[in-house]
Amino acid sequence: MLHFSGSLTRLVGELKKLPGVGEKSALRLAFHLLKYPGNIEALAESLMQVKEKVRFCSLCFAITEDDPCWICSGERDGATLCVVEEPQDLLALERSRAFRGRYHVLQGALSPLNGVTPRDLRIAELMQRLEGGEVREVLIATNFTVEGEATALYLTRMIKPLGIKVTRLAHGIPIGSDLEYVDAATVQRAVEGRSEL
Amino acid sequence: MLHFSGSLTRLVGELKKLPGVGEKSALRLAFHLLKYPGNIEALAESLMQVKEKVRFCSLCFAITEDDPCWICSGERDGATLCVVEEPQDLLALERSRAFRGRYHVLQGALSPLNGVTPRDLRIAELMQRLEGGEVREVLIATNFTVEGEATALYLTRMIKPLGIKVTRLAHGIPIGSDLEYVDAATVQRAVEGRSEL
Repeated sequence: MLHFSGSLTRLVGELKKLPGVGEKSALRLAFHLLKYPGNIEALAESLMQVKEKVRFCSLCFAITEDDPCWICSGERDGATLCVVEEPQDLLALERSRAFRGRYHVLQGALSPLNGVTPRDLRIAELMQRLEGGEVREVLIATNFTVEGEATALYLTRMIKPLGIKVTRLAHGIPIGSDLEYVDAATVQRAVEGRSEL
Repeated sequence: MLHFSGSLTRLVGELKKLPGVGEKSALRLAFHLLKYPGNIEALAESLMQVKEKVRFCSLCFAITEDDPCWICSGERDGATLCVVEEPQDLLALERSRAFRGRYHVLQGALSPLNGVTPRDLRIAELMQRLEGGEVREVLIATNFTVEGEATALYLTRMIKPLGIKVTRLAHGIPIGSDLEYVDAATVQRAVEGRSEL
């Protein structure tokens, strides 16, 4: 490899840093790119554009090109605030079209084992936004993982004393699932949360 | 997505052109890159470097930064020439350290269904190299696929009349395999090609 091209070796090294890309996949991607020089240039350019233009919204910490972002500057329900871990979680909620309030992106979840403490997340900024008094309900939409649940618990304890309603996304059977294959804990939550028809 | 950042949408579009990368993986890669701005720049730079520096060797059509490549300009056995489909096949052979001759990269395999004819491959250039008279044996190392086998057959018919010996990589049981799990056709070839101890 080295003998062939130092720049190709470097590209393989950079590609290997991507999640889910090992030595073999990186080589495969590099050789694929070599076949399409037009794509190489387009990819390089779009990378530089992203680096130059994309930033975090100074209010909600979602990714944006304009600050504040289109949600913070748009006409959304300011009384409900949805807290998510990452910008991609915000995207998932927006795709559902079920939430019309504003967002706050924590940029992670509490994980003492990995050294992620409240100070590493955008929690101070969240509390500052809540002090404004406009928000009446905080919908905590962190992931249903150990870290996400711990973060939800932590935030609930911080926010409830302010007299703000704290809610959490519902647990239940995913749309289109076969009951047979749904795990017991999920079925249990679905029964507990059953609704009248 | 669109609302957030046009440049991010463009990056996702470019990443989706890579083999094995769909909409979801592309988004995941893009968000990963956003977390490491240093990596974005390094990746973009290494892409441009590859585009500028990497070319095909004018003799063997392997990828190289210097023309002719280090194999063509090095001290290798000029009497044996190994024909491969792609530059990455050449790498696999070099890693084995079993072949000390020179190479010729076809840049593909015959595939009439996909419109790949002999004219689309570096076959004319191969025949020209053989006319030099130095080569005594051509080892055909195209893949053992329908296209690779067809290409091997085609090349054999072209090269044999020149009085040059044509050989093919051996079939057999891969090192470290459980006989139980090796397909019948491979076992058959291994029996046919058995060697005395």
